[in-house]
Amino acid sequence: MPEDRLFGPLSTTPEMAAAVSDEAWLRALLRFEAALARAEAKAGLIPVAVAEEIAAATSAGGFDLTGIGQRAAASGTPVVPLLEALRGRLSPAGVQSLHRGATSQDAVDTALMLVARHGLELLAADLEGLAAAAAGLARTHRATAMAGRTLLQQALPTTFGLKAAGWLVAVLEAADRLESYRRSRLAVQLGGAAGTLADLGGSALAVRQALAEDLRLAEPVLPWHTARARVGELGAALALAAGTAAKIALDVILLSQTEVAEVAEPAAPGRGVSSALPHKRNPVLSVEAVAAARGVQAQAGLLLGSLVQPHERAAGEWQAEWAAVSESFRLTGGAVARMREVLEGLEVDPERMRSNLAVTGSTGSAEALVDLALQTYQRRRHD
Amino acid sequence: MPEDRLFGPLSTTPEMAAAVSDEAWLRALLRFEAALARAEAKAGLIPVAVAEEIAAATSAGGFDLTGIGQRAAASGTPVVPLLEALRGRLSPAGVQSLHRGATSQDAVDTALMLVARHGLELLAADLEGLAAAAAGLARTHRATAMAGRTLLQQALPTTFGLKAAGWLVAVLEAADRLESYRRSRLAVQLGGAAGTLADLGGSALAVRQALAEDLRLAEPVLPWHTARARVGELGAALALAAGTAAKIALDVILLSQTEVAEVAEPAAPGRGVSSALPHKRNPVLSVEAVAAARGVQAQAGLLLGSLVQPHERAAGEWQAEWAAVSESFRLTGGAVARMREVLEGLEVDPERMRSNLAVTGSTGSAEALVDLALQTYQRRRHD
Amino acid sequence: MPEDRLFGPLSTTPEMAAAVSDEAWLRALLRFEAALARAEAKAGLIPVAVAEEIAAATSAGGFDLTGIGQRAAASGTPVVPLLEALRGRLSPAGVQSLHRGATSQDAVDTALMLVARHGLELLAADLEGLAAAAAGLARTHRATAMAGRTLLQQALPTTFGLKAAGWLVAVLEAADRLESYRRSRLAVQLGGAAGTLADLGGSALAVRQALAEDLRLAEPVLPWHTARARVGELGAALALAAGTAAKIALDVILLSQTEVAEVAEPAAPGRGVSSALPHKRNPVLSVEAVAAARGVQAQAGLLLGSLVQPHERAAGEWQAEWAAVSESFRLTGGAVARMREVLEGLEVDPERMRSNLAVTGSTGSAEALVDLALQTYQRRRHD
Amino acid sequence: MPEDRLFGPLSTTPEMAAAVSDEAWLRALLRFEAALARAEAKAGLIPVAVAEEIAAATSAGGFDLTGIGQRAAASGTPVVPLLEALRGRLSPAGVQSLHRGATSQDAVDTALMLVARHGLELLAADLEGLAAAAAGLARTHRATAMAGRTLLQQALPTTFGLKAAGWLVAVLEAADRLESYRRSRLAVQLGGAAGTLADLGGSALAVRQALAEDLRLAEPVLPWHTARARVGELGAALALAAGTAAKIALDVILLSQTEVAEVAEPAAPGRGVSSALPHKRNPVLSVEAVAAARGVQAQAGLLLGSLVQPHERAAGEWQAEWAAVSESFRLTGGAVARMREVLEGLEVDPERMRSNLAVTGSTGSAEALVDLALQTYQRRRHD
Repeated sequence: MPEDRLFGPLSTTPEMAAAVSDEAWLRALLRFEAALARAEAKAGLIPVAVAEEIAAATSAGGFDLTGIGQRAAASGTPVVPLLEALRGRLSPAGVQSLHRGATSQDAVDTALMLVARHGLELLAADLEGLAAAAAGLARTHRATAMAGRTLLQQALPTTFGLKAAGWLVAVLEAADRLESYRRSRLAVQLGGAAGTLADLGGSALAVRQALAEDLRLAEPVLPWHTARARVGELGAALALAAGTAAKIALDVILLSQTEVAEVAEPAAPGRGVSSALPHKRNPVLSVEAVAAARGVQAQAGLLLGSLVQPHERAAGEWQAEWAAVSESFRLTGGAVARMREVLEGLEVDPERMRSNLAVTGSTGSAEALVDLALQTYQRRRHD
Repeated sequence: MPEDRLFGPLSTTPEMAAAVSDEAWLRALLRFEAALARAEAKAGLIPVAVAEEIAAATSAGGFDLTGIGQRAAASGTPVVPLLEALRGRLSPAGVQSLHRGATSQDAVDTALMLVARHGLELLAADLEGLAAAAAGLARTHRATAMAGRTLLQQALPTTFGLKAAGWLVAVLEAADRLESYRRSRLAVQLGGAAGTLADLGGSALAVRQALAEDLRLAEPVLPWHTARARVGELGAALALAAGTAAKIALDVILLSQTEVAEVAEPAAPGRGVSSALPHKRNPVLSVEAVAAARGVQAQAGLLLGSLVQPHERAAGEWQAEWAAVSESFRLTGGAVARMREVLEGLEVDPERMRSNLAVTGSTGSAEALVDLALQTYQRRRHD
Repeated sequence: MPEDRLFGPLSTTPEMAAAVSDEAWLRALLRFEAALARAEAKAGLIPVAVAEEIAAATSAGGFDLTGIGQRAAASGTPVVPLLEALRGRLSPAGVQSLHRGATSQDAVDTALMLVARHGLELLAADLEGLAAAAAGLARTHRATAMAGRTLLQQALPTTFGLKAAGWLVAVLEAADRLESYRRSRLAVQLGGAAGTLADLGGSALAVRQALAEDLRLAEPVLPWHTARARVGELGAALALAAGTAAKIALDVILLSQTEVAEVAEPAAPGRGVSSALPHKRNPVLSVEAVAAARGVQAQAGLLLGSLVQPHERAAGEWQAEWAAVSESFRLTGGAVARMREVLEGLEVDPERMRSNLAVTGSTGSAEALVDLALQTYQRRRHD
Repeated sequence: MPEDRLFGPLSTTPEMAAAVSDEAWLRALLRFEAALARAEAKAGLIPVAVAEEIAAATSAGGFDLTGIGQRAAASGTPVVPLLEALRGRLSPAGVQSLHRGATSQDAVDTALMLVARHGLELLAADLEGLAAAAAGLARTHRATAMAGRTLLQQALPTTFGLKAAGWLVAVLEAADRLESYRRSRLAVQLGGAAGTLADLGGSALAVRQALAEDLRLAEPVLPWHTARARVGELGAALALAAGTAAKIALDVILLSQTEVAEVAEPAAPGRGVSSALPHKRNPVLSVEAVAAARGVQAQAGLLLGSLVQPHERAAGEWQAEWAAVSESFRLTGGAVARMREVLEGLEVDPERMRSNLAVTGSTGSAEALVDLALQTYQRRRHD
């Protein structure tokens, strides 16, 4: 992926950009190698002192990330040059024990899970904030009448509270899906060259268990080198989260139209400025969220299509996952954070909502439905 | 979608084709209207006798499906002409009570859930059969050595049992995802024109509850007219199931290559025949499964992209979901059923597996891993 | 694909549905076999009388389409059972000469091109009508001032004529792309079992040329069994046409909003009716066009992804193309025809456009730009 | 998009990475502003000296790319902070004339076209090299018999020359599509805030023409702010080029299988090395090409879906294009360059091709077809 200095900040947050950065991936790869050595020491396969030497080498810093990347193309994975770099820091005993019984994909897939865990934590926080903001709007505007619009035509009155409650419930569901993934699907990868754990002898399963414990990842039944639903699910869950943010964004954009003017994004110096039109105040955060979500959808299609992989290791399908996962986090993080900021400071104009109403009728059970949504939110917070 | 007589049978099963057929959708729409009337009668909104009249009218058969479809384009939904057809069968009291408080999308979304439930039941049965077949192969070939292949190069020995165990675990996970969806996400839709349940007064939530019970669907917190993650999740889960079947298919195709010849699809009169080459035996069921999975992936992209819908009713995004969901079931059903048939009758050549082995080494923990997978399968069956 | 009676009419036209129907495909397959026989007779490979017998058998009608489809699954193609059916109608000499030197894919790919040609002709007519309608609006409203809206905010004045001129130019480009495809890319397929034209001896290229002439298709340099850019291009060109229609549809939907109300779709009895709200007039044709375009985009993704096919015949990638191409035509035809109908009868409210204007300024070169667009249109018509 | 140091080099070339880098975009944006000032000076709208001042300021270097990117998020475009930075370098007269009559999208879209032109030039060179390599293989192996494989089963003999000729023709077509795009579709964007060229008075069209000439881009009939087929076409053409490279890659991967071993990627120190298996020689360049093509396909779906944009400026759809176009070039460049390298050094084993042949028969017109393909190639080179 190209660098991200010019356009990148338009579609992510600095925190999420860091969480899926080259440096983060490198740290995760090193963490795998250190944890593997410790697990093998625990199982008696290598001396504890050697494991400590390996762990120390991985955490010493100073890796030439650029050089590793450049040498990665020859083997198709950054693990080969990374191991070379590590070996240069190790004693002969360390060299012999490093990466023992593992294959490149073990390191990359486990690193992916570690990177994903951090990304999921950041998303959880922003989704929580987004939910709180939506809940606040639902509460405040529980009885604020406005037009319900179907096919973009005014249909019957609704309340802004119910609209915000709809956002709230959708955000809670998105957060639940990601949390459920985080709890049950983040797993270690360890299979060795052909997925048989061949070089770890009778200790193989003990090593795998110790590795999973060390990294606080689940232990899968089998190596999942070419069983990629785990990654496809993640892509889908991220697309659903980004799409949820973009649905809110679309509503904000439509409600911000000059002719509707029922809400406005929070004002800030320079925000929403046009290069040609000083009077304009564009719903720019929402626009950026919509743009980001479109990018996530594209990556989700790739990730769902990546399940069809040959034999014991893919020939291109897996290798396309790395950037797709990073990019999905980067953009989902951007979309969710933006909509959190929008809803936390949303300017709502109940007067205008009332005066725009061109249809008459009751708001039905809107208030009762808002209460149901808020109860759901409260229950969830006290769990 | 075009008719399905010429190419359709290549990519589905007769049972799944029926489950998502026009007739099935029509029945589900009628079932919604009948159940709604009963629920409203239970809540005291309409007389019980009128509800019975409506229910009888919906089950009398003889609807002009073709005519309803042709008239649907004017209103953008088949519900408008369907209600017209029903009204022609009802007393004035029935006409007045029919579809009371509901909107077209209530009927279509609930029908979608009913159609999906049937589709999920069919899939569950075929996934169970596919898992059983994979488990059988894993057990039988627990110790059958073969080449483990990475990037399509022989890497180290593995066992055919471990390969089949990998299929098994992936199939179990696909089945679990769909079962989890079936249990928790199939929900009734009832919101009325603007999602406020406006025309049902104080009985609205009681009607919704009774409707959900009548149809054995969950009751959502809020109407989900434009909160479409429920449908996006379904699309993703189907794509993951179809992709799982296609991964097995790809392995079978690759293992069936003339130069590899380690497995062959079950023979049957006329199967795998070429129009030009009588000697060939094509892995045609696996090929059809791969083709079907590609179609499901395309639809999953559409469904994940459909979350971004305006206000209280979509202007095209929702309307694109109907065919996408039907098609996803149709093709996923085809892919899974074909791979079940393939694995149930797979011809395995352990001799050839051995003689093809160009690499040496132990099969590591392959047998222990197979046992782990089979234990997982057994535990699950006894739950 | 499922049958199309209930939802199908919402997304296509009867003419396009017929053009890509089972019957149309069957006719095209039969036409290939007849033309091949004639070409082989012309090259002296088979007797003229036998070619005539084959041609007569293909045009006799009465083929059991349903039965052929059901038997297709065994061989993975409807060509095998179709040839069986034809053989039952032929003398021994006819049986011997039928399909000589051809493979199933030769028949299916050539049929696809014949089906596509008809689909392109239908699209060309509707795009022409759509362009004429847009040109009419551009001319009539050359000086009709309205708000130019960027990011859905009023920015500066523009004219409705310029908006319509923008639609016009986009439609002309879409038509040009499809016409360019029709002229240069519709090609015959003939390669035989391995793409070497092995069974046609020294006459092979003469047969290919005669076949191409008979069917009025181009002759490709090589068989394109696994060189699928020809199909991917078609999918992309259709997606661009459908997307062009959907862009117009989105503008119509947005301009029809209750709060904007600057245009309305042409009225017709029953059109835009809501099952819950008699007062509403939904922009239903535009909504259907947007929905259809989303389906085309999904299929275009599949078709662009289908280039990666193994060796001399695909193992699933090609087989997924058939439905994707038919569906792309079906939906593109629906989207374009609907927007033609919309623009031909669009109700425009210049008063409202003026009164909605919340920004001031000149309309710049809008009129000069409209004139440029109309000149482009005129030049093109007189070519 | 995330930075590209660790995984980036696996999927692109240094040249293409530079062509779509932040720096390249920044230069293109600056070039637009300079050329616009010169065009306005030529039209007499601003003094020539001021235009020269602006041009000098744009080429002085030293822009704080990172700072510009960080400030871009507030306005949704890097143009606003870039203009601020430029203004700091200009006299009051320069400030007043800078970006006159233009809108941010004019700058970004024109920059996109300039970036695309460079990307297309790099691709053209590598496609030419790839074609030459394929032609060389076709010539050398014109009569080298090998198995033709359909559905991955040996069908009939073919020649390796014909296979290479198939690659050649596909590459020529991919190059032609991109060249045709480069010649006819690279166009300047200039419309001003609402697409009416409002602030340029009667000189507007003269300015547009001079701008196009200055940048050697075509002049479109109308501003294309929300007529995005131009970008969708580019995305599709890149996906077709990447898919063409990946089809060759898939063939190389399949022919390199241990059990087939008919070709091997060119050897190089460290290439194809496995972290676990020193004996392996993975077809790593082809694997990287397949991976890259999958990423391009995902972006093409996004770009084809971006045609549906509201009114005169998109609210997210356009903003998603920037990264998608850069990424499409980055990955297509990587895929094509890798396959050029592979074919330029491909190790072919005619002995093994012969001994693998399990089917008998003539190679038909394979040699005549190779000659046709080579003639096409020669004719094209002498045009």
